[in-house]
Amino acid sequence: MRVSALLTSLGINSTLCVLFFTLYSVLRKQPGYYKVYIPRLLAQGSSRREGRFKLGRLIPSPGWLARAWRLSEEDILSSNGLDALVFMRAITFCLKVFAFAGVIGIFVLLPVNSMGTQLHEIDFTDIANNSLDVFTISNVNDGSERLWIHFAAVYTVTIFVCGLLFTEYKYISSKRIAFFHSSDPQPHQFTILVSNIPASSDISIGESVERFFRENHPATYLSHVVIRRTRKIRNLTNEAKNLYKRVTHSRAGSLQDKHTIFSEKVDLDRYEKRLEDIRQHVRLEQSDISMSKDTRAAFVSFRTRYGAAIALHLQQAVNPLHWITEEAPAPKDVYWPFFSSTFMQRWTSKLVIVVVCVLLTILFLIPVIIVQGLTNLSQLEAWFPFLKNILSKTFVSQIVTGYLPSLILQLFLKIVPPIMRFLSSIQGYISLSEIEKSACNKGIWFTVWNVFFATVFSGSVFYQLSIVLDPKSLPEKLGISVPAQASFFIAYVVTTGWTSVASELFRVIPFVGSLIAKCLGSTDDDEDVEAPSICFHRDFPRMLFFGLLGIAYFFLAPLILPFLLVYFCMVYFIFRNQFIHVYAPKYETGGRFWPMVHDTMIFSLVLMHAIAVGIFTLKKLSWASTLVFPLPAITLLFNEYCRKRFLPVFRAYPAEVLIRKDRADWNQGLMTRFYGNLVTAYEDPAMVPISYSRNPDSLDLPLLSPVSI
Amino acid sequence: MRVSALLTSLGINSTLCVLFFTLYSVLRKQPGYYKVYIPRLLAQGSSRREGRFKLGRLIPSPGWLARAWRLSEEDILSSNGLDALVFMRAITFCLKVFAFAGVIGIFVLLPVNSMGTQLHEIDFTDIANNSLDVFTISNVNDGSERLWIHFAAVYTVTIFVCGLLFTEYKYISSKRIAFFHSSDPQPHQFTILVSNIPASSDISIGESVERFFRENHPATYLSHVVIRRTRKIRNLTNEAKNLYKRVTHSRAGSLQDKHTIFSEKVDLDRYEKRLEDIRQHVRLEQSDISMSKDTRAAFVSFRTRYGAAIALHLQQAVNPLHWITEEAPAPKDVYWPFFSSTFMQRWTSKLVIVVVCVLLTILFLIPVIIVQGLTNLSQLEAWFPFLKNILSKTFVSQIVTGYLPSLILQLFLKIVPPIMRFLSSIQGYISLSEIEKSACNKGIWFTVWNVFFATVFSGSVFYQLSIVLDPKSLPEKLGISVPAQASFFIAYVVTTGWTSVASELFRVIPFVGSLIAKCLGSTDDDEDVEAPSICFHRDFPRMLFFGLLGIAYFFLAPLILPFLLVYFCMVYFIFRNQFIHVYAPKYETGGRFWPMVHDTMIFSLVLMHAIAVGIFTLKKLSWASTLVFPLPAITLLFNEYCRKRFLPVFRAYPAEVLIRKDRADWNQGLMTRFYGNLVTAYEDPAMVPISYSRNPDSLDLPLLSPVSI
Repeated sequence: MRVSALLTSLGINSTLCVLFFTLYSVLRKQPGYYKVYIPRLLAQGSSRREGRFKLGRLIPSPGWLARAWRLSEEDILSSNGLDALVFMRAITFCLKVFAFAGVIGIFVLLPVNSMGTQLHEIDFTDIANNSLDVFTISNVNDGSERLWIHFAAVYTVTIFVCGLLFTEYKYISSKRIAFFHSSDPQPHQFTILVSNIPASSDISIGESVERFFRENHPATYLSHVVIRRTRKIRNLTNEAKNLYKRVTHSRAGSLQDKHTIFSEKVDLDRYEKRLEDIRQHVRLEQSDISMSKDTRAAFVSFRTRYGAAIALHLQQAVNPLHWITEEAPAPKDVYWPFFSSTFMQRWTSKLVIVVVCVLLTILFLIPVIIVQGLTNLSQLEAWFPFLKNILSKTFVSQIVTGYLPSLILQLFLKIVPPIMRFLSSIQGYISLSEIEKSACNKGIWFTVWNVFFATVFSGSVFYQLSIVLDPKSLPEKLGISVPAQASFFIAYVVTTGWTSVASELFRVIPFVGSLIAKCLGSTDDDEDVEAPSICFHRDFPRMLFFGLLGIAYFFLAPLILPFLLVYFCMVYFIFRNQFIHVYAPKYETGGRFWPMVHDTMIFSLVLMHAIAVGIFTLKKLSWASTLVFPLPAITLLFNEYCRKRFLPVFRAYPAEVLIRKDRADWNQGLMTRFYGNLVTAYEDPAMVPISYSRNPDSLDLPLLSPVSI
Repeated sequence: MRVSALLTSLGINSTLCVLFFTLYSVLRKQPGYYKVYIPRLLAQGSSRREGRFKLGRLIPSPGWLARAWRLSEEDILSSNGLDALVFMRAITFCLKVFAFAGVIGIFVLLPVNSMGTQLHEIDFTDIANNSLDVFTISNVNDGSERLWIHFAAVYTVTIFVCGLLFTEYKYISSKRIAFFHSSDPQPHQFTILVSNIPASSDISIGESVERFFRENHPATYLSHVVIRRTRKIRNLTNEAKNLYKRVTHSRAGSLQDKHTIFSEKVDLDRYEKRLEDIRQHVRLEQSDISMSKDTRAAFVSFRTRYGAAIALHLQQAVNPLHWITEEAPAPKDVYWPFFSSTFMQRWTSKLVIVVVCVLLTILFLIPVIIVQGLTNLSQLEAWFPFLKNILSKTFVSQIVTGYLPSLILQLFLKIVPPIMRFLSSIQGYISLSEIEKSACNKGIWFTVWNVFFATVFSGSVFYQLSIVLDPKSLPEKLGISVPAQASFFIAYVVTTGWTSVASELFRVIPFVGSLIAKCLGSTDDDEDVEAPSICFHRDFPRMLFFGLLGIAYFFLAPLILPFLLVYFCMVYFIFRNQFIHVYAPKYETGGRFWPMVHDTMIFSLVLMHAIAVGIFTLKKLSWASTLVFPLPAITLLFNEYCRKRFLPVFRAYPAEVLIRKDRADWNQGLMTRFYGNLVTAYEDPAMVPISYSRNPDSLDLPLLSPVSI
């Protein structure tokens, strides 16, 4: 790829970004789009629609940038919880790393690379016509002593990243403890989920749970809720919920418009009839289930957090597959459909999901290979000879090589997070947060494999497998292939990175949705607005992948760094803005996403080292490649140390903390009232008796209240 | 190797075995060798020396075999503990497997192999002159349909072994629980070791421990013992102990013989003077240490087993590297020198030991390669041309190829267990049992690598590494190399296996030691006899390696199976005999050696599958090699299931069991008296005040009592 192609791509994307920013600045002030751009504020009721029109509304203003800048960590923590803070810390972590690496890269490595003559001499008269390869390490002459500069850079950046990782891990684990200390008593802190309760013929599961915990935890056991199979009721309730919405909307519409059309009236009657049917059905099912056999799982609550922790961490029964305990999720975080399954079911579904992920990875290679074809114009011309004429035009060829490949890849990658989330949701996790965390992990490895490795080692799956299964020659192959793809990844940062973050600000899909709704003439209802939650399983993998790209490429093609810095600056501002205006947290893991960030960074470092070994070997500087060897070993040892030093706190709260918190709550006298809530906190929402809607003007009809799940 | 060479080796070793058996049958009845052959009975005082001479003593009798046969599991359990039982179960496990595989191998596979014509046609006229290769799978014709018989055998034996592994694991874990239930209250069940106690400037470590556990475990905390650095005292006490022995011996000698020689008297005086010096020194050091800074570790005892388990399993402090808890070993099992070290010291020493083990493995290849040279006569002749004349003689060449290689290997392998034990002892383990367990593990992998892989892939270390690092081509290379070494391993079973077990019965080294002592005229003292403990780190790896050989070779060279069966029968009888007469347990891990046996067997199965894939590919039966593929996957899944189903019980006792046992003890009223012992159980023996010997005739001299460590 030439510099000019990169500039074209840069031009297109900068324009797009500016366009998005401007549109956002204007649209966010239009009351009609409040639901799209400030749903959080609407849901909180802190922003009312202004009826009057002001001229200022049409002038784009950067005020939101300043507000995002001023947001403090405490604000994020109090309004969006620790997970959002961790997300922001991951962004600032990358910013710090790439600012540091950027200085080294641009002011030291880039001049060294372009002074080389291995590939081309740099053509200062026509910069735009230079190949981007001139700025990569490939251009440094073989065996040149200047490669020691790269060597030093690898060491420096590794040490910097490791140091930063350590302080961040320390900071976030201390925040986690502090956050726990400052939290009010919450049901999930006192509760565990017990599954695979051994069935007994003479007593029910409920009695069996009661007996077991009264026997073994007499001082701390409080209550339990046996879980029932309620999928049927849940489906009915969901149907009722949708119908209810339609009925109220129709009615509201007919009341407002006063154009009561006969057919609408008929519809309304039909809906209400159907609703009443469902209500009967649900009642029947509920009484049916209360009679029938329970599942073999229960939420068991304890009087103290420490009591719950003891029951959680000690193997309860002689057979380790009975009375399996795990942390209970917060009541609103519970993912009801799957957690009644047995150990074997969950284990099998886990295995099946692994296989499915592997298959998905293989299938996904097809678009990646097509994308690769685009960067290689001559191959494309060979495949589709009729394109020859079009492709020979400079502008077209620049778009095709510089822009199209990343765009196609991006479109395909868009569908990955929902798929991963779906796969995680059928894997047997019992909470939304676990599902998102698992989808996040899957997303990261999928992206690394399918974007990084598949692009670098384009070829058949078996070829790729053969490379990875042959660790001896891996560094050498990385050394050959990775620098060759530098220009693709620079373009990738500009297109996928910049555009995705700008479209995040602009919220393209909700915006389009709202436009369509407007066209269809549906009325908005501010009371109804629910603030969406951030999709960590979409944003974490994407951001971390750019981190990986930056670390892997910083010494090969330092030109990637400024673009990455711009990307992370945008991410920084935009997500802070979104945390203020758009997202509200749906669950709280207490910072459990951080270990994933840490692991990805460690992997990126080791990947960089492997590439460095390969490159130095290829460049005939074998001493340097030998001296790089200790680096991955030290990095992995460092990681091992961090796992021992910090990870346990993310797995469970230490006894000291639990006991202190328990005592503090007792001393404040919060507990007796809390126990009352605790006992009913984990009732299955499907089993809550259906109630008449409290909406006074629907008293004439027994309506179902929408049960929030 | 020809059949005749195997027969030579068989002849020599059978003779040796018969010789050992006969000598044992005679010598064990001689009172002079009671100390060698029945130390356990002597130590128990259940066997007194008979003065009168009987003719029966000189006639070898097989009565001990019958006694060994009649020994029941309960006898072993009550006299030698669960570890000995696990050892015996491992032997019977192998016996069952090889009896089953032997039937298939000898009656089905062996005829099939010898009917093939790939290498040679079998020569029925002169059986002894056939190559052993005729009986291996290599002799089956390429692409022959008969290979499906081998395929079926692989599946059958895998299923049989897995089934047996499951029932054994289940049996032993139930035994472990039952053993725990039947045990008396023991200090280590109530105690944990806490290390890395954070140092504070204003209070001592002891006060800090007291405060921490009174705060966090007020109901269950009982007492603590801070550990002090006592290496200096320990050395002094050991010196004193040796001197004391010498003094008492000299005195006993001079009293008995009534030939009090002047020089002996002088020696005695000198010793006693030195003893008194040491005693002063020890007292000084002890008071010095009580004053000086403690180490940052302590034994903390609790009122209940459950309380100790809670403190053990829950992370105590916010910083996971402070207040690290681990199970306390039984007081007599404590390995005092190393457990005062900090987390970082132990971690580093672990890493160092890993590196040392790798280096040792590499160094050890030298003797292995020499051994390999011996099986390859022509190479040997090329190295040492002057040997040509000797080697051309049939008998010599048969000994050299059939016997010498294994003998040399065996001699070198003899030094491995002590080395491994030494390495484990400086790795930072705090108990003898942990050290032996770790040495056992090291021993197994060392043997597998250095005997199996080094023999199979003879060549440089780097060549071997390159093979193992290239998992793709591993099965193929195994398929080529493993059958080629079949005859070597058959000979290995006969020489190393048979001889080692016969010499175990004969107790060569103690026997020689006793002979030397007799020649030097030292007097025996039956009171002094201490029963030795079995060296699990020597015997487990050896036995398991033969198990691995059997599983890996059963379908390649079924001829190995009868020899293995004989070996395991001998092991069965001899170790049962030794458990009655020789060994007394030094510690009790409660069956924790079994998971190691299980893992080794699973590894053997997967190794067999890899070999099968390679063989079937080489033999051009690609369908079979494809169909073998699911087998290792299923085996590993089975292993994963077993790890979840059984392993937790071996890591820690479940809450249910602990609580039941605690209640039972309370109800029996055993506890109040027991607490008194518990408080002092973990006093460092070096810190116990030195006392005068209670021997009345040494009252004239203040002697040190031998402090048992």
